[in-house]
Amino acid sequence: MSATQTRQRYAILAPGLFATRSAKTAHGVIAYGRDEVVCVIDPDHVGKRVRDVVPYLASDAPIVASLDDARAYAPSALLVGVAPPSGALPQAWRATIVAALEAGIAVVSGLHQIFAEDPEFIAAAERGATWIWDVRTPPQPRLFSGAGNGVAPRVVLTVGSDCAVGKMTASLELARAANDAGVRARFVATGQTGIMIAGSGTAIDRVIADFASGAAEGLILDNFAADREGEAPPDVLFVEGQGGINHPAFAPVTLALLYGACPDALVLVHLATRTHVDDYGTPLLALRELANIYEALCATVKPARVVGIALNTLGLDDAAARSAIARATEETGLPCDDLVRFGPDRFFSEIEPAIAQKTAPRR
Amino acid sequence: MSATQTRQRYAILAPGLFATRSAKTAHGVIAYGRDEVVCVIDPDHVGKRVRDVVPYLASDAPIVASLDDARAYAPSALLVGVAPPSGALPQAWRATIVAALEAGIAVVSGLHQIFAEDPEFIAAAERGATWIWDVRTPPQPRLFSGAGNGVAPRVVLTVGSDCAVGKMTASLELARAANDAGVRARFVATGQTGIMIAGSGTAIDRVIADFASGAAEGLILDNFAADREGEAPPDVLFVEGQGGINHPAFAPVTLALLYGACPDALVLVHLATRTHVDDYGTPLLALRELANIYEALCATVKPARVVGIALNTLGLDDAAARSAIARATEETGLPCDDLVRFGPDRFFSEIEPAIAQKTAPRR
Repeated sequence: MSATQTRQRYAILAPGLFATRSAKTAHGVIAYGRDEVVCVIDPDHVGKRVRDVVPYLASDAPIVASLDDARAYAPSALLVGVAPPSGALPQAWRATIVAALEAGIAVVSGLHQIFAEDPEFIAAAERGATWIWDVRTPPQPRLFSGAGNGVAPRVVLTVGSDCAVGKMTASLELARAANDAGVRARFVATGQTGIMIAGSGTAIDRVIADFASGAAEGLILDNFAADREGEAPPDVLFVEGQGGINHPAFAPVTLALLYGACPDALVLVHLATRTHVDDYGTPLLALRELANIYEALCATVKPARVVGIALNTLGLDDAAARSAIARATEETGLPCDDLVRFGPDRFFSEIEPAIAQKTAPRR
Repeated sequence: MSATQTRQRYAILAPGLFATRSAKTAHGVIAYGRDEVVCVIDPDHVGKRVRDVVPYLASDAPIVASLDDARAYAPSALLVGVAPPSGALPQAWRATIVAALEAGIAVVSGLHQIFAEDPEFIAAAERGATWIWDVRTPPQPRLFSGAGNGVAPRVVLTVGSDCAVGKMTASLELARAANDAGVRARFVATGQTGIMIAGSGTAIDRVIADFASGAAEGLILDNFAADREGEAPPDVLFVEGQGGINHPAFAPVTLALLYGACPDALVLVHLATRTHVDDYGTPLLALRELANIYEALCATVKPARVVGIALNTLGLDDAAARSAIARATEETGLPCDDLVRFGPDRFFSEIEPAIAQKTAPRR
């Protein structure tokens, strides 16, 4: 089951975490989702509105204490908007999920744990005559075939200095700017939040390692189908990247996209205030060094150049943001901007010539 | 269930494929396994012995037509020695596996498909009161933690120019040479054949991409435990590498080991006659270029240098092998040898000074 057919009215579950970076999924769905967010469940901020707690989110949705309170806003689905700190699902959340399903409220989750395989959740969904959408459910295993090299649209992949620096946001903003400029563009989701926003996609991080590159290629091939939903075939696919190439835990996912998505060009994404890989203390690379290593890897399979830097200046004031952007351009010789703070249009027009051509695999 | 407790008497299933590269698992288990191989099932070579079909394997085990014929040699277990060309298990093999289990003959498989989750196989094993060992069953998901950086033994990882060039063999030969030289060394298996040989290990390619690096680290941590089987703690771990860094499909697995296993040194493995990535047509990199890219990636997380080249000269005569080895040394300035053709001892003594130190993660 997926939430792609009808527009949903989401209650977002984020108990105790809505103000934190752990609620990145909640924030992303509120900022970019096509579904309506009617309320957020977080007892720590009851009575406030979303924009009071996360100022850059332009939403007046109320924050409530519990599922019971959320029901006043008639949600059609409960969306798990955070990753539990332990990785395992807390008992209290289980109860909320069961209660939602029994009340006929669908459940959308991007956790590694597949809800639709949980006997308690299955039974509750049956009792409530409703559905569960595990956005991270992996597709059928397929090996990388090389067919992705032959698709017609140009493929632009975001690559990053780390996790959670703004790769999904940059891809979404670029797809929007392209469409505004008359270029048929699609956002291709590769992680849980992106999938919830787009209504389709594959969480590459949940795929068996042998098939991760093939899963990335599968997304490109699916998005090339000219007849998808009766739409004209796209000119450009903006593929959401994952992780970072010197991330000790997640770089394999990064590399699966770097090869599997067959990109023709890369946009490098960095959070200006981040200096080390989260949780591991590994220093981030300088932007030029980072661009070089991504390009060196692509050059061994199918060349793709870094055509610009999407710099996330969250936490800086406008003046500091402008100088960080100027510094990045100076360091790399590449177009650079913050696509949220200053909008994506100027940056898109600057990189457009550099994403006009497909590249051929190395032979 | 695993085959690690008792020495097995294997019948190896390789119908129609024993002479081909698809039987790499069969060949590896015959060459290096601690279990006895009593016969091989391949109707294409009935009446011959293993060494008649694969000359470099010093085994007189007979080749028979069927499981029925194999039973004359009293196998304790049937080992699936090949990957089916389609990826799916052929119907004829299913019948053989069921018949073996019903006859009380255990089954060992390294396919992606987990036999012990197959209702027909489960029922047959129950009827035969025997067991199934799926060597590729993934461990419990764990994220990379960084603890692997702190283990005492030096970690030497083989890295390759492609799949199936001899990384497992090089790691096995180096572990043997080290032990012969009085250095306590262990082989750490990371793929299906290696696990069948060693009796333990993790098939990193079968792990969910997010946890692949963590699974590699888990192997290092487990092998560090001083009390494992009452053995003294090892001085060196020789970790079997996987794939190749410019392999479009399998490089994510390569990178999971490059970061997750926390290597202090790398041994580069190449098949002298191979020029392109199998099945994809991607040209292999020159040895120096390949060493550079592995070192550049390690340098971003935890430095490790390539300390030597294990050149697989299969298919060349001795003179051609010697000049290929000389050429590799000239190109790279590194010790190089064919560890099978000329033995691993000289090469081990040449690289020993370069693997004497641990490296520290980048901070």
